[in-house]
Amino acid sequence: MSIVVVGSVAFDSISSPHGSVERAVGGSATYFSLAASIFSSVKLVAVVGEDFGAENIELFHRKGIDTEGLEVVEGGKTFFWQGSYMEDMNERDTIKTELNVFEGFDPTLPDSYRSSEFLFLGNIDPDLQIRVLEQVKGDPIIGCDTMNFWIDRKRQRLHDILKKIDILFINDSEAVQLSGEKNLIRAGRRLIDTGPQKVVIKKGEHGSVLFSGDEIFLIPAFPLEEVVDPTGAGDSYAGAFFGYLDSAGGIDNNFFKRAVVYATVVAGFTCEGFSVERLARLEREEVEERYKRFIEMFTIT
Amino acid sequence: MSIVVVGSVAFDSISSPHGSVERAVGGSATYFSLAASIFSSVKLVAVVGEDFGAENIELFHRKGIDTEGLEVVEGGKTFFWQGSYMEDMNERDTIKTELNVFEGFDPTLPDSYRSSEFLFLGNIDPDLQIRVLEQVKGDPIIGCDTMNFWIDRKRQRLHDILKKIDILFINDSEAVQLSGEKNLIRAGRRLIDTGPQKVVIKKGEHGSVLFSGDEIFLIPAFPLEEVVDPTGAGDSYAGAFFGYLDSAGGIDNNFFKRAVVYATVVAGFTCEGFSVERLARLEREEVEERYKRFIEMFTIT
Repeated sequence: MSIVVVGSVAFDSISSPHGSVERAVGGSATYFSLAASIFSSVKLVAVVGEDFGAENIELFHRKGIDTEGLEVVEGGKTFFWQGSYMEDMNERDTIKTELNVFEGFDPTLPDSYRSSEFLFLGNIDPDLQIRVLEQVKGDPIIGCDTMNFWIDRKRQRLHDILKKIDILFINDSEAVQLSGEKNLIRAGRRLIDTGPQKVVIKKGEHGSVLFSGDEIFLIPAFPLEEVVDPTGAGDSYAGAFFGYLDSAGGIDNNFFKRAVVYATVVAGFTCEGFSVERLARLEREEVEERYKRFIEMFTIT
Repeated sequence: MSIVVVGSVAFDSISSPHGSVERAVGGSATYFSLAASIFSSVKLVAVVGEDFGAENIELFHRKGIDTEGLEVVEGGKTFFWQGSYMEDMNERDTIKTELNVFEGFDPTLPDSYRSSEFLFLGNIDPDLQIRVLEQVKGDPIIGCDTMNFWIDRKRQRLHDILKKIDILFINDSEAVQLSGEKNLIRAGRRLIDTGPQKVVIKKGEHGSVLFSGDEIFLIPAFPLEEVVDPTGAGDSYAGAFFGYLDSAGGIDNNFFKRAVVYATVVAGFTCEGFSVERLARLEREEVEERYKRFIEMFTIT
């Protein structure tokens, strides 16, 4: 079984109260694929410039990630993002965004990618997400992420997508914005009514909620004494969610609940280092150990 | 077994996007005792003015709450608070506070109150909390609440109290303020180091965390589609927590975890009506039904 992810691969310069990194590897598809690769096989669709370098592509290969779908644009420059986290780590300022080769991104799935069991549409232009859906064969389980920028500009297009996907991943403020409901529980239920069978609302340090038909599954965040850099936590969450599901071989509701717990655990690890530093060296064993310990923290006996 | 609560009994005028009430019964000791009375016997220590009226005292008697410790000041006026909730219900403005008879409150425990098994010090002047502790006989389990006002003005006095109590109930921003730690997990652990065996950090709609020695227990809030009036949710939380503990007859850590879940459920009910409207007619059966349903929302099978 395998998972196709379409999204961004980028260079990130990040500063937080805990330090800073310059031009570290980032992007939604990077975090997603590294997290998913802990559990399963991942096929990556993204674009980078010539400056990305073989050593960075090697980062994916070491994790068994298929990069046939990673386009390298000769003479092009890789998407660059610079951001800074404030003292309380819940707010961040974007200092610079250079789309570079990402501006002309036209995702193309290699033939070997078209019949995968899982597909994740990272946070990119909804028009591109639609174009990816048109290339897919079979009936994969499809997840999708988005952001306020696209909800503002391409709301109708997003609603078209919601009708075609299985699981929407969205953060709390975006769920309110997209649904028009201020209350998160009503927001989740409203979004379910618009198409996807499942909606995951991510609340950062406050955990997440899985809406599944009429059912609600509530999960706190993994308690961290130090959040070094939350960049990519949401994409790692989705990556671990899909990675676990693909590896577990079942899709009844209990598998989805466990996927939410694995997702939470891996997102927590991601926050413990700058960029992909912690995620890239994360082993399945560490995840399993923390999974067990985490479940005990909210289990009543 | 019984629980003594010392705190405020007040009239509240509250407005929220869902409507408003004028001079409804409120106050920390009111919410606490109504919530605790669902599970156990409560003895109330507070002060009201002559304007409080027999029909309001009857509210306590209907729930079997002992009011021997409720002082009625002849010719005095009851503590009055007026507040307004904003659209997102997480922020509120205090429009008016009239301490009235509460200004001269000198809590005195009737003899029949001095040997109770549980004692809760509601959010009042730490000097008064100390004076209550001096009147207690035996070795009750003692809980304590406080607020930013007292942390600002009587920090040292609060630290004296922390050494004498078993469980601190505190909200997230106050935990940060009192501990000096911005990270909530570190804040909870730091507070444990200063005295109480257990610390409960309340995060409103984001749930709560029980710190118990080195252990952490995480619990989401009960998911509500409509929050009508969150006034008193924290005091109902503490009331249900103590009420359940007193009724359960055990104090190992599993009882405390269950107490946190009951507390969360009852606090949720409180938010469903203005003032004590929902809480005052809440039956144990409804609580048990929702307790079971709630646990299923975060249980992995």
